[in-house]
Amino acid sequence: MIDGIALALSGGVGGAKLALGLSRVLGPEELTIVANTGDDFEHLGLHISPDVDTLLYTLSGVNNPETGWGRAEETWSCMADLKRLRGETWFRLGDKDLALHLCRTAQLKKGARLSEVIDGLRKQMEIGPEVLPMSDHPVRTEVETDQGLLQFQQYFVRKRCEPVVKRLHFTGASEAGMTPRVSQLLAGNALHSIIICPSNPYLSIDPILAIPGVRQAIKGSTAPTIAVSPIVDGSAIKGPTAKLMAELGVPVSAAAVVEHYGDLLDGFVIDSADAALAGSIEKGGIACTVTNTVMKSLDDRTQLARDVLEFARTLGPIIR
Amino acid sequence: MIDGIALALSGGVGGAKLALGLSRVLGPEELTIVANTGDDFEHLGLHISPDVDTLLYTLSGVNNPETGWGRAEETWSCMADLKRLRGETWFRLGDKDLALHLCRTAQLKKGARLSEVIDGLRKQMEIGPEVLPMSDHPVRTEVETDQGLLQFQQYFVRKRCEPVVKRLHFTGASEAGMTPRVSQLLAGNALHSIIICPSNPYLSIDPILAIPGVRQAIKGSTAPTIAVSPIVDGSAIKGPTAKLMAELGVPVSAAAVVEHYGDLLDGFVIDSADAALAGSIEKGGIACTVTNTVMKSLDDRTQLARDVLEFARTLGPIIR
Repeated sequence: MIDGIALALSGGVGGAKLALGLSRVLGPEELTIVANTGDDFEHLGLHISPDVDTLLYTLSGVNNPETGWGRAEETWSCMADLKRLRGETWFRLGDKDLALHLCRTAQLKKGARLSEVIDGLRKQMEIGPEVLPMSDHPVRTEVETDQGLLQFQQYFVRKRCEPVVKRLHFTGASEAGMTPRVSQLLAGNALHSIIICPSNPYLSIDPILAIPGVRQAIKGSTAPTIAVSPIVDGSAIKGPTAKLMAELGVPVSAAAVVEHYGDLLDGFVIDSADAALAGSIEKGGIACTVTNTVMKSLDDRTQLARDVLEFARTLGPIIR
Repeated sequence: MIDGIALALSGGVGGAKLALGLSRVLGPEELTIVANTGDDFEHLGLHISPDVDTLLYTLSGVNNPETGWGRAEETWSCMADLKRLRGETWFRLGDKDLALHLCRTAQLKKGARLSEVIDGLRKQMEIGPEVLPMSDHPVRTEVETDQGLLQFQQYFVRKRCEPVVKRLHFTGASEAGMTPRVSQLLAGNALHSIIICPSNPYLSIDPILAIPGVRQAIKGSTAPTIAVSPIVDGSAIKGPTAKLMAELGVPVSAAAVVEHYGDLLDGFVIDSADAALAGSIEKGGIACTVTNTVMKSLDDRTQLARDVLEFARTLGPIIR
């Protein structure tokens, strides 16, 4: 292993798997995770941060292993009664999950910054690595579809990604700023790698990159930037990535992901099933490594984390 | 029985018992209950209306019969996790109870009036009689104590009524107004009785009477106003009424309650244990009836309701 800090950019379920792997391989001071908060929304008076919560639950080992999101051994008393009262139940909030939302909402109402709140929750949940929101300012992903402009959770949960996507908007991003900690890490020389987790590039990573200064700071960093492909053998492991890429007119392939991230990348990690793509990716000037990227077990997660970190070691630091 | 509507003013547990009795004796169109909302507060981002909720739970038969407040067969998953996250747990919110708070909060955030929200909830809970907040405007009971000025729930729940009370404030009352429905009922001739339930006169009924115009409208109504004593044999059935009266320098007796309500009353209902007081109350110009006011069973509740209504029949209408 190499000295320094890995900075991981992550969305929800897929990203959290690699983040968990990294947290098992690196010391608590050696990993900082930046979470997409474009999925955040206000629902039933609560501030909900789905990707942050998936990361917190996954890293503290209390996530639901079947769904990937939400709490293990969850109970649903509140939802059952909310249904009886004809309240909104399209976004399922478990009783245990509610505690996190209530806790966060109360602290935000008292004036705390989102990053402070998450840091407090992370410590209470005995999570070692830092978990940071992409910004303390509200950025809200909105989806322009054949059914009109939809708030992200309306599209994602309520309409189950069924509408055809035309374009994505990250409302508020242009007025938002990175958290001071992320600025500091990207500007300094403490990082040995910037890892783009195998999350949805359009829905989970692009909102992070839409924060002014982030893209430039990543490109300026001496740490190599490595993305792990969320596309394996022409389809996504989970979620609407493949459907979305097709609707946006992009080929559903790992190569298209490389093209999407463009000059941000120094290296790209593809699955063995896509080994044939390695040559053309390298020809495009991006280092490529081939390994198993399908994380079914905890061993898969830690092995992929090791592979990515080893790849970073061979690539960096980068002299810009 | 008499034609028309009974208007009941109620706080939480004690008042809700009589309200339940009245709801069993009267038709759904024959009873309107006005609830104290001075106990309302914002907690963990939620709008909580303890007295309204106790009424809704009691009238729909889902209340916890042991505590009098909260839900029967409640579960506590959320609170357990909130404790782990070191969130605020001094005000216990059960998982089922949370559904009501989330539902109400969401509707209020969308701009609905509190009375509309409660009416919707009441209907979903299949409660016949109208349940109205004393006002759609926020009124907050604050308690001046030997430990400083405390918000009501801080005094009542967090500090378990331990501070010595010097004075009560109903902040916001002077800017608040009755709901249109209550104004209409008090001004018209549809009422055959105004019943002040055996709730805490200082903490539960005074906030209702502090709304501008309420006291005058009650005094001007042709319906007789009858209070049921919350004090039996020199002590309160439940809650801090007796302790509070002593701290305010008032004798802990049914007679002191009569004096407190003053010229608002046409009749007063006391328990058999206080029969000896009937003569002096009547001498003061207030009709008095003696019955069993201690409501242990559902039969006790309906019998007291019948007694109060019969008393009203003998007293009214009043020609002012």
